[in-house]
Amino acid sequence: MFTLPQKDFRAPTTCLGPTCMQDLGSSHGEDLEGECSRKLDQKLPELRGGIINLGTSENKLCFDLLSWRLSQRDMQRVEPSLLQYADWRGHLFLREEVAKFLSFYCKSPVPLRPENVVVLNGGASLFSALATVLCEAGEAFLIPTPYYGAITQHVCLYGNIRLAYVYLDSEVTGLDTRPFQLTVEKLEMALREAHSEGVKVKGLILISPQNPLGDVYSPEELQEYLVFAKRHRLHVIVDEVYMLSVFEKSVGYRSVLSLERLPDPQRTHVMWATSKDFGMSGLRFGTLYTENQDVATAVASLCRYHGLSGLVQYQMAQLLRDRDWINQVYLPENHARLKAAHTYVSEELRALGIPFLSRGAGFFIWVDLRKYLPKGTFEEEMLLWRRFLDNKVLLSFGKAFECKEPGWFRFVFSDQVHRLCLGMQRVQQVLAGKSQVAEDPRPSQSQEPSDQRR
Amino acid sequence: MFTLPQKDFRAPTTCLGPTCMQDLGSSHGEDLEGECSRKLDQKLPELRGGIINLGTSENKLCFDLLSWRLSQRDMQRVEPSLLQYADWRGHLFLREEVAKFLSFYCKSPVPLRPENVVVLNGGASLFSALATVLCEAGEAFLIPTPYYGAITQHVCLYGNIRLAYVYLDSEVTGLDTRPFQLTVEKLEMALREAHSEGVKVKGLILISPQNPLGDVYSPEELQEYLVFAKRHRLHVIVDEVYMLSVFEKSVGYRSVLSLERLPDPQRTHVMWATSKDFGMSGLRFGTLYTENQDVATAVASLCRYHGLSGLVQYQMAQLLRDRDWINQVYLPENHARLKAAHTYVSEELRALGIPFLSRGAGFFIWVDLRKYLPKGTFEEEMLLWRRFLDNKVLLSFGKAFECKEPGWFRFVFSDQVHRLCLGMQRVQQVLAGKSQVAEDPRPSQSQEPSDQRR
Repeated sequence: MFTLPQKDFRAPTTCLGPTCMQDLGSSHGEDLEGECSRKLDQKLPELRGGIINLGTSENKLCFDLLSWRLSQRDMQRVEPSLLQYADWRGHLFLREEVAKFLSFYCKSPVPLRPENVVVLNGGASLFSALATVLCEAGEAFLIPTPYYGAITQHVCLYGNIRLAYVYLDSEVTGLDTRPFQLTVEKLEMALREAHSEGVKVKGLILISPQNPLGDVYSPEELQEYLVFAKRHRLHVIVDEVYMLSVFEKSVGYRSVLSLERLPDPQRTHVMWATSKDFGMSGLRFGTLYTENQDVATAVASLCRYHGLSGLVQYQMAQLLRDRDWINQVYLPENHARLKAAHTYVSEELRALGIPFLSRGAGFFIWVDLRKYLPKGTFEEEMLLWRRFLDNKVLLSFGKAFECKEPGWFRFVFSDQVHRLCLGMQRVQQVLAGKSQVAEDPRPSQSQEPSDQRR
Repeated sequence: MFTLPQKDFRAPTTCLGPTCMQDLGSSHGEDLEGECSRKLDQKLPELRGGIINLGTSENKLCFDLLSWRLSQRDMQRVEPSLLQYADWRGHLFLREEVAKFLSFYCKSPVPLRPENVVVLNGGASLFSALATVLCEAGEAFLIPTPYYGAITQHVCLYGNIRLAYVYLDSEVTGLDTRPFQLTVEKLEMALREAHSEGVKVKGLILISPQNPLGDVYSPEELQEYLVFAKRHRLHVIVDEVYMLSVFEKSVGYRSVLSLERLPDPQRTHVMWATSKDFGMSGLRFGTLYTENQDVATAVASLCRYHGLSGLVQYQMAQLLRDRDWINQVYLPENHARLKAAHTYVSEELRALGIPFLSRGAGFFIWVDLRKYLPKGTFEEEMLLWRRFLDNKVLLSFGKAFECKEPGWFRFVFSDQVHRLCLGMQRVQQVLAGKSQVAEDPRPSQSQEPSDQRR
């Protein structure tokens, strides 16, 4: 977490888990989201000599569409009420649009209600606020691994909440299972284990579509997990920030809000954001949907630290209400571009004989590079990641997602094809043992001039 | 703090001080900033039957100027880099503008540096982040009272940091002192007292221009306080969010950044925001200036929870760089309007024979209503506040600022004259014992129709 060279500054002492203690300035794994990756991007843009970033989960395919939409005249409203203190839950006009938007795209059986909506500046903030509200310091959430590793920090940095891992593996144990399948048995086992270690578990975090697996939970699976949670009086945070980034029609994605009846609606809290589905991680807009008014009120009390500009709230309301543009322009084009990019990278991987998992949701492919680790250790995984980086392609390694099997990597494909092409070439060079770093006879300084051309 | 009807939800247990435990939904004192006041405003706008809000410290005098400026074409930039993850300290282009802006308006003897700037979504977030970074849970900051009471929550809700009060009073004890004068002797005494109670003090919070006193510290005073802090190795957070709202030329306001040499620059952290000085509390933009790179880095690590939209960052850079508009249009007009509003309310108070303190900075007058409390208790203060509210004028009472003397009230004057006029009439009615509530022969329901006209 904090880079704290002096003891003088505070590091949350109960903050557990390896990701949490990572130096944010370093450049490995999921911490890269918006930190190191940004530095790399700023320093080394699209040049051949620059680093190709296949590590940060951003959708870089639709800036043209988004720039156009956000530049339209209807976005440019400035009025006094937008410049004044507002309801910390968010302006009512925005919460109304969010409720309608989620009702439609989550296929809710009943209209969702604005009073159950809280808006704030992104999913990270929502994890921070929910964890602080639902738990006491030192308590825990169950989370299946591999998972988006930054959540460790989100629940820990302010809230001092820890995660209790539900370790999944790639082994397929039955006809109706798939790699990294979450089952109620595994949830029960992880819960028992946490209890046996004296850890009080207050909730369960589910991510669907899943990051980094690119998988989705079926309605039946969702129902099972929710029933498990109800049985143990656990809150469930369902992170659906990729819900509109399901680009394969055959994937039967279902939002938890589409279920006919939630087993425990007072303990089910759903999050969504524009960072992924609208490719705007820099816009900082996220939203909570919960029927539990005490939770909504408590989160709203923390929203004074997670507020977003009234002007942006207005813009987001305009965006979310523009169903024509979303349905007829943005989503079809976004999905087509995601699919094309996904096809390109997955075909490259197939050509290299590299196995991977990906079901057609999200921005990433979960790639099995285990055969490139002779001893199958996390040290080798890190070394391989470092070799990729030395060859100027940035990936995320499995340990950053708490994957229990060394050798898995997350490849982000939601980028322009010329960068994907270069990135995959570099991956191939490393895997073939022909990376520039190893073989380039020139001294490393020789790459400086191209870096300076940026 | 949280409204938590169920024990299930977390209330920071080390969160001390009465303001902190207040129900945010209630409508008393400084908690009103952006919470109850907003509800009142939304429900009961400018109608005669509505509540006149002289409680929330917002500048409502310049929306015409601001709306015009923010609607100009140069504000409407949408480009990919603004929509992507960025440096959590803020985009470099904005931090460069902030550094130039503060160099100029704080009259810094040397140019301030962008690398010492962190931007985030408002002053509340900055208090939260700084407290968490500088202290361990349960440690404390010294703060002179009366002070902007919401700080209690800002340092407590996430950080579990407490405040140790330096109680000031209205008695003038010498030729060179003034009411509520802060002295090093009082700081030393409060520090000793905290130590004797086993409280570890890590820093000192100074607000200048002061809220609610409307006072400023002279450079000599600032120097003394900073030397005191250095002697005890205390960090100093200097909150200068009203620095451009000094509307009386005779007030010799000096930013701490104007001092020739800071006694302990590594422990001096300055905050500024646009909420007050640019009358945009809904825009959520604040900034930290600190030479301490460890503090800046640690705060930036928390900025993923306090980030603001790249689009807003761009707009703020455009605003801050427009020195012509700020100097020739905005500041002269804003100061003239503040002065006129201040003159109106202070003359009304004089006409009523009510003493007050106000030196020409900020949006408020610190009003001495002690003679209206027969027994001089906080219970009476609260009852008087309630009588004002029942007569549809909202004020902030002294207890919300931890004033040790019952009977002081903060009157916000930065509003349109027709509202000030109505508000002061209602204040006068209450003080004369002629409030509608007491005398109006109609049942209270009779006011409903006008409320519904909004």
